[in-house]
Amino acid sequence: MKVAVVMGSISDLPVVEPTIDTLKKFGISVEAHVMSAHRTPDKAHDFAVSAKENGIDVIIAAAGKAAHLAGVLAAYTILPVIGLPIKSSTMDGLDSLLSTVQMPPGIPVATVAINGGENAALLAIQILSLKYQDLEPKLTEYKANMAKKVNEADEKFQKELKLK
Amino acid sequence: MKVAVVMGSISDLPVVEPTIDTLKKFGISVEAHVMSAHRTPDKAHDFAVSAKENGIDVIIAAAGKAAHLAGVLAAYTILPVIGLPIKSSTMDGLDSLLSTVQMPPGIPVATVAINGGENAALLAIQILSLKYQDLEPKLTEYKANMAKKVNEADEKFQKELKLK
Amino acid sequence: MKVAVVMGSISDLPVVEPTIDTLKKFGISVEAHVMSAHRTPDKAHDFAVSAKENGIDVIIAAAGKAAHLAGVLAAYTILPVIGLPIKSSTMDGLDSLLSTVQMPPGIPVATVAINGGENAALLAIQILSLKYQDLEPKLTEYKANMAKKVNEADEKFQKELKLK
Amino acid sequence: MKVAVVMGSISDLPVVEPTIDTLKKFGISVEAHVMSAHRTPDKAHDFAVSAKENGIDVIIAAAGKAAHLAGVLAAYTILPVIGLPIKSSTMDGLDSLLSTVQMPPGIPVATVAINGGENAALLAIQILSLKYQDLEPKLTEYKANMAKKVNEADEKFQKELKLK
Amino acid sequence: MKVAVVMGSISDLPVVEPTIDTLKKFGISVEAHVMSAHRTPDKAHDFAVSAKENGIDVIIAAAGKAAHLAGVLAAYTILPVIGLPIKSSTMDGLDSLLSTVQMPPGIPVATVAINGGENAALLAIQILSLKYQDLEPKLTEYKANMAKKVNEADEKFQKELKLK
Amino acid sequence: MKVAVVMGSISDLPVVEPTIDTLKKFGISVEAHVMSAHRTPDKAHDFAVSAKENGIDVIIAAAGKAAHLAGVLAAYTILPVIGLPIKSSTMDGLDSLLSTVQMPPGIPVATVAINGGENAALLAIQILSLKYQDLEPKLTEYKANMAKKVNEADEKFQKELKLK
Amino acid sequence: MKVAVVMGSISDLPVVEPTIDTLKKFGISVEAHVMSAHRTPDKAHDFAVSAKENGIDVIIAAAGKAAHLAGVLAAYTILPVIGLPIKSSTMDGLDSLLSTVQMPPGIPVATVAINGGENAALLAIQILSLKYQDLEPKLTEYKANMAKKVNEADEKFQKELKLK
Amino acid sequence: MKVAVVMGSISDLPVVEPTIDTLKKFGISVEAHVMSAHRTPDKAHDFAVSAKENGIDVIIAAAGKAAHLAGVLAAYTILPVIGLPIKSSTMDGLDSLLSTVQMPPGIPVATVAINGGENAALLAIQILSLKYQDLEPKLTEYKANMAKKVNEADEKFQKELKLK
Repeated sequence: MKVAVVMGSISDLPVVEPTIDTLKKFGISVEAHVMSAHRTPDKAHDFAVSAKENGIDVIIAAAGKAAHLAGVLAAYTILPVIGLPIKSSTMDGLDSLLSTVQMPPGIPVATVAINGGENAALLAIQILSLKYQDLEPKLTEYKANMAKKVNEADEKFQKELKLK
Repeated sequence: MKVAVVMGSISDLPVVEPTIDTLKKFGISVEAHVMSAHRTPDKAHDFAVSAKENGIDVIIAAAGKAAHLAGVLAAYTILPVIGLPIKSSTMDGLDSLLSTVQMPPGIPVATVAINGGENAALLAIQILSLKYQDLEPKLTEYKANMAKKVNEADEKFQKELKLK
Repeated sequence: MKVAVVMGSISDLPVVEPTIDTLKKFGISVEAHVMSAHRTPDKAHDFAVSAKENGIDVIIAAAGKAAHLAGVLAAYTILPVIGLPIKSSTMDGLDSLLSTVQMPPGIPVATVAINGGENAALLAIQILSLKYQDLEPKLTEYKANMAKKVNEADEKFQKELKLK
Repeated sequence: MKVAVVMGSISDLPVVEPTIDTLKKFGISVEAHVMSAHRTPDKAHDFAVSAKENGIDVIIAAAGKAAHLAGVLAAYTILPVIGLPIKSSTMDGLDSLLSTVQMPPGIPVATVAINGGENAALLAIQILSLKYQDLEPKLTEYKANMAKKVNEADEKFQKELKLK
Repeated sequence: MKVAVVMGSISDLPVVEPTIDTLKKFGISVEAHVMSAHRTPDKAHDFAVSAKENGIDVIIAAAGKAAHLAGVLAAYTILPVIGLPIKSSTMDGLDSLLSTVQMPPGIPVATVAINGGENAALLAIQILSLKYQDLEPKLTEYKANMAKKVNEADEKFQKELKLK
Repeated sequence: MKVAVVMGSISDLPVVEPTIDTLKKFGISVEAHVMSAHRTPDKAHDFAVSAKENGIDVIIAAAGKAAHLAGVLAAYTILPVIGLPIKSSTMDGLDSLLSTVQMPPGIPVATVAINGGENAALLAIQILSLKYQDLEPKLTEYKANMAKKVNEADEKFQKELKLK
Repeated sequence: MKVAVVMGSISDLPVVEPTIDTLKKFGISVEAHVMSAHRTPDKAHDFAVSAKENGIDVIIAAAGKAAHLAGVLAAYTILPVIGLPIKSSTMDGLDSLLSTVQMPPGIPVATVAINGGENAALLAIQILSLKYQDLEPKLTEYKANMAKKVNEADEKFQKELKLK
Repeated sequence: MKVAVVMGSISDLPVVEPTIDTLKKFGISVEAHVMSAHRTPDKAHDFAVSAKENGIDVIIAAAGKAAHLAGVLAAYTILPVIGLPIKSSTMDGLDSLLSTVQMPPGIPVATVAINGGENAALLAIQILSLKYQDLEPKLTEYKANMAKKVNEADEKFQKELKLK
């Protein structure tokens, strides 16, 4: 099982790093590339066209501003493409979000929150877990851990409240 | 392979119908429900908690305004949840979109375009096709058909241009 | 009389602290919790379902991004739920505001300003003062104090103006 | 127990009618007025200043555009004021919403959804039910009825699905 | 000739200072106050009702968030009221702008740019110059000075360009 | 006393008609023109440059989309310029509003609500009333009439309420 | 001299028709195609790559929603690409505008107004007129005609004003 | 071949500098001016009216807030005018963008991204390359260089990935 993480510019890396790290924590093979729908369109084309035969299961595409990367890749593949809108302009990410999510009928992009690097990975893992069922207990554990952290924060907070 | 299509209100049906129809065209078993994160929260809880053991692979949740349905279901399951924001308020669907897509870290919702009923189905099919590989040629054919329709529209348009 | 203050994440505490402090200044018993509609949905459910019998009069729910917490709690209780949208995303709090206020018919959330921690408390106190009438003179005094502060700022400003 | 429903213009009546009807269905005494923060400011002032001694428990203020009515009334009373933003301009109600909800510290307005007439009433009833406990079973029944309607819509929909 | 400059909070002073300074440079008598439509509504009422007989010609009202001050004053006077929206919330001033400018028919507020303190003064001066004609040459000189500054910046820039 | 009402396109007339009618009701001499900052820039220039010597006291400029008309006229005159943003694009008037109100320091435009034709006239009248004091009782009467209409609507509404 | 007009869907034709008509009125050879960046990406690629050698001088690309067409074509050619955002979604064209105009450094798209079909043509003609100088008098005449129409509308309006 | 770069205020220089530098790198003669549509309207008029006879091929106009500069220049010339919206207000550049791009029929402005200084230059160069064909290989080389930089960033990133 393999996920490709593609970013439109190396400056998107701080948002994409949690994506890569989360995928690796789940033991998923990760391929990551810098490629641009606008500056290296042929590379994007070649990547998307051959993604499936290269063993990629899911593509995560991170881009900002007029964020075409996810949509352009989705045009060339039947693999699920997850769009990760990056806040990289002066528009607070609204341009990236709308450019990514408002896809026309026929070519969906599974869009997550602006700068939602970790969630892009988790969505890919949920998708993969349909096929690779050993991911399921890991996802269940991940959810339990999240709940645990919230509960621990609450417990610590209760103590602070009492001391006040 | 089974997809559950859930809508927050029966008034969402016109947007959801193309979702159901597209899934059926691909030969996918569809379960569809009206249930509300706010008005029938227990039903939503019970549905999400047991979705996996009921054989559901992917959940599509359509809702409008402060659209919590997709996020609430995603909280209770590790299945991939696709959010379909409905334009049902006076805010042109921006409220539905932001309520669906801006999920906090840990609980992703795979969001498609506002009123993008067909795309919600296609995304589910792309996800399923990782596991059920006989969907792949159908997706490829679907893409080819779309291209064909665009090309036919172009051909017809070229003739009209000449007649002008 | 008791108000429960619930926040979706411990990182919301700086906005929530003035809520807790204001309630305490009015002599109101406060219960405060970290719980998430998405990461600890069962805890949220259990809290809401039993809030009334646990002696809670009003619930204040603070959350950001796709802020479902107030709506989810309101689904499970007939107590008044005050929604406090937190600016915790890149969207300037617009996502939190719309996710909180645009509730569908049947399940209202009494929404205050983005990051309006103090106002969430005051609204709760106004609600409580219908039943607990000894709060009324305190509210009247609070209003008088606010006016006094504005007037003092004005007096100081008048002196500075004259010195100019 | 009495709720005052105030609208800035008689043209707001279609949104306000469900507010009045819902309150009456719960057996609550309703006082309704047309008054404007801008065109009849003295009337608004006099109303707010004497609302409490006139036996009013909660005020619902509906207004559109630069919607100052709820805030102006809240300035003059310690009663809870519910703001109902009306979509009456070309701005899709965003101006009404922000003018109503973004109140400065000290003077909260409990804001419901744009054009959310029914929810304004329900919020008032939830607030009243703290003091008037015979409203509680009615609210519980109201919630049950809503759930029932969703379930009936679902049942009808299931039958239609099977016939397809 | 006298202009009153009113601000909703002393924290608005940095935006209001250029207003006061510009008015004074033109030799206009300035009255400045801190008063709030919400926290000191009676003071605002009394000020507006008596503004005309106190010799005030124009009122400038600066406020942020749900900025009701200009509209509330305009309700009580026939003097021209200039609204100066302050960026004091997390909404980039859009809430202040819409709350100030979107006034209903009958009660106009002459709105200037968000944080446009200098322009509020200049607009007041333009209005006064209809009646007090000795302001006209000063306004003409002010415009000439602005043009001169732009031209000087251009000349300096041309030299830098040549040195490059 | 004379007001010039200028519109960027004859299609703006429905919004501008109440402006002209209101001015005439107050006995004010009105000059009205169709002229465009973009299509007839010389005409706009000539108009603005000579407005003052042509006896014009106040200019009202109505325009939509990238609405430059008010700002362009203001650049060429020291008369007060009132900007009336027209909803003439697909952007709900937000483009017209921002293009009109967000003027840079030095050149204010007194902006009224989107499509606020009547308010543009009333603002001009308030400005004129500083100099032409016989307008004052008319403005006071206008305000009284508005209040009367609101009160009559209220009285009619009270009767309907009782009949219910 | 030749301009290619490309639209993402035949449903964009009503906006694109004035583009084609305006170009033809100026005697410019027009090639028009329906092609989609998402549904016929190879066709879009082939078109852009060979546009220059096919004698095309300027490309106009019309698309709506997540409007990638102009950006994708611009990636493959050094010809100037004019982006024409279409209002084809529920978002009032804001998604189309931001997806078209917010291009990253290196690949500009010359964006015109939402649904600005005529302006897309005029911009292409202005660009062509640098090289094909016989277009210049036609552009000058076009501008004169526009001014004439505004002036005629004004004259007609002046007569109506007098009759009133 | 000559491009004029005009900015509304010297404070826009940081955005405009990459424009000038990019044009110079391509060997294009650059004229640059500070001039304001509002503070030096005559200068702007004179510049635009004589731009063509002064040998200018393309005009780039940078301005912020209610950004009228590009539109005003376009009104007076048939040269292509490129609008560069500057983020200089509190509105994140949305005001500058809409004021620049939403031009009415007849007077297009070729708008690039907010703060897109480099793209404004590149668009001008693409336009010039139609007439001055020796720019073509330079544009092709520029695109190749951009691709090279993306590829180098990718290669460096691949090495870092392996070391992890």
